[in-house]
Amino acid sequence: MKTFSTRIAVRDYELDSQGIVNNANYLHYLELARHEFCQQAGYSFAQMAADGLDPVVRRAELDYIAPLRMGDVMEVELTMSRRGAKFLFNQAIFRAADHSPVLRAVITIACLEGGRISRGDRLAEKFADYLTDSEQ
Amino acid sequence: MKTFSTRIAVRDYELDSQGIVNNANYLHYLELARHEFCQQAGYSFAQMAADGLDPVVRRAELDYIAPLRMGDVMEVELTMSRRGAKFLFNQAIFRAADHSPVLRAVITIACLEGGRISRGDRLAEKFADYLTDSEQ
Amino acid sequence: MKTFSTRIAVRDYELDSQGIVNNANYLHYLELARHEFCQQAGYSFAQMAADGLDPVVRRAELDYIAPLRMGDVMEVELTMSRRGAKFLFNQAIFRAADHSPVLRAVITIACLEGGRISRGDRLAEKFADYLTDSEQ
Amino acid sequence: MKTFSTRIAVRDYELDSQGIVNNANYLHYLELARHEFCQQAGYSFAQMAADGLDPVVRRAELDYIAPLRMGDVMEVELTMSRRGAKFLFNQAIFRAADHSPVLRAVITIACLEGGRISRGDRLAEKFADYLTDSEQ
Repeated sequence: MKTFSTRIAVRDYELDSQGIVNNANYLHYLELARHEFCQQAGYSFAQMAADGLDPVVRRAELDYIAPLRMGDVMEVELTMSRRGAKFLFNQAIFRAADHSPVLRAVITIACLEGGRISRGDRLAEKFADYLTDSEQ
Repeated sequence: MKTFSTRIAVRDYELDSQGIVNNANYLHYLELARHEFCQQAGYSFAQMAADGLDPVVRRAELDYIAPLRMGDVMEVELTMSRRGAKFLFNQAIFRAADHSPVLRAVITIACLEGGRISRGDRLAEKFADYLTDSEQ
Repeated sequence: MKTFSTRIAVRDYELDSQGIVNNANYLHYLELARHEFCQQAGYSFAQMAADGLDPVVRRAELDYIAPLRMGDVMEVELTMSRRGAKFLFNQAIFRAADHSPVLRAVITIACLEGGRISRGDRLAEKFADYLTDSEQ
Repeated sequence: MKTFSTRIAVRDYELDSQGIVNNANYLHYLELARHEFCQQAGYSFAQMAADGLDPVVRRAELDYIAPLRMGDVMEVELTMSRRGAKFLFNQAIFRAADHSPVLRAVITIACLEGGRISRGDRLAEKFADYLTDSEQ
């Protein structure tokens, strides 16, 4: 299983009045990492849209371990697996400075084609090098 | 010149680490007020899109007078005027509790039709009851 | 178990390029509903902060059922329960127009006091009228 | 007058339903560039806060020239000048691919010390190498 990793710096406007990154922004970071992964894997979201594919988030499980703060840089790691018509992204965020865990997440994606749920075969083909079957 | 007014409550996630509403959110509030105004005036953004009209912001002038904080409710007032092919929204935000001034803004809008700048006549017709000519 | 319910209108800037509300915004809606619930229950976030209590999200499970679109109004329902030192919010979002389900979520909160995880007794006391013990 | 320049990539969640970057996000980009500039100039926002300095935006003038779209990378340039107790940031955003102009802005900052408007001398000292007097 190949692991993709990217670095993202916290932006000051992402902090809330408690001085920590607001919970909702982690969904942005996770999405950003997935989109960068897709682009690097050779099949960008823009290309998917052009091909009539529309990946949508079906489920998100987020475990918040420790908050990010002003000036922090994070590493976002992900692996991708398939379970039937669904694609699972196991994602983890670490603080880059000490690789301490910040958040763990499982994001489940389904793929629409022409507005209907597809079996995901076209997506699976494009990401064959990165996919493992999820046994569960 | 008719004045439109709407109330918006600050949401906690709009605060930044200084405990005040982040500057960028005021553009959201102003947009929200303009869209509510359009809807109430009988010509919503959804309808404009359906009609092939695409209003775009050309210029924004924002004077920040005092910050909004947690729990604040604001009043957003606006008047609309026309200057040639452009539409000007004079907008002001007040803290509802004491009507103290928070922000003044002038937002200049142009209207695309089929991707090209239009003279704005269709928009002007729809908002005729609210429009004054801007002399300047 | 008392159910709290509030209405929130989708704002146009919350839509993404697919024309649907971006996934991250649902965390904002859920937070907004929880904060309104706390205020109505008589113990606002501002008051908690003044009392040295700092509730933090530990886990979020979100099931996305159907997307919200431009012009939609949603109802956000919640119930609150306690499991040891943790507080669970069962939240559901419905489209107001037809009460069709949009999202279901379980948000787990822990409460810091002076920067350390507390047993949550002070919070439990304040919300005694709304709390059930979570058996699981 | 020294020009600072930084690169920022558009993130997909910053697009709105018209497929272009929402207007409010440009204030985020401009802020991000200013904060990076301050850090590189040797006096970060975190350090200012630690020193009791609190720079606040007083006025923003934004001219929107052309929209950024999915996949775009931008260059944000800025110069800094002083006009009495105020600091002016002249900022311009270009599309990196062809250096075509996207937005021009003038952001006016005042500096609070202990909650009161200061003459800005401490800030001016720190940024002496970058400052020109603004004649106007």
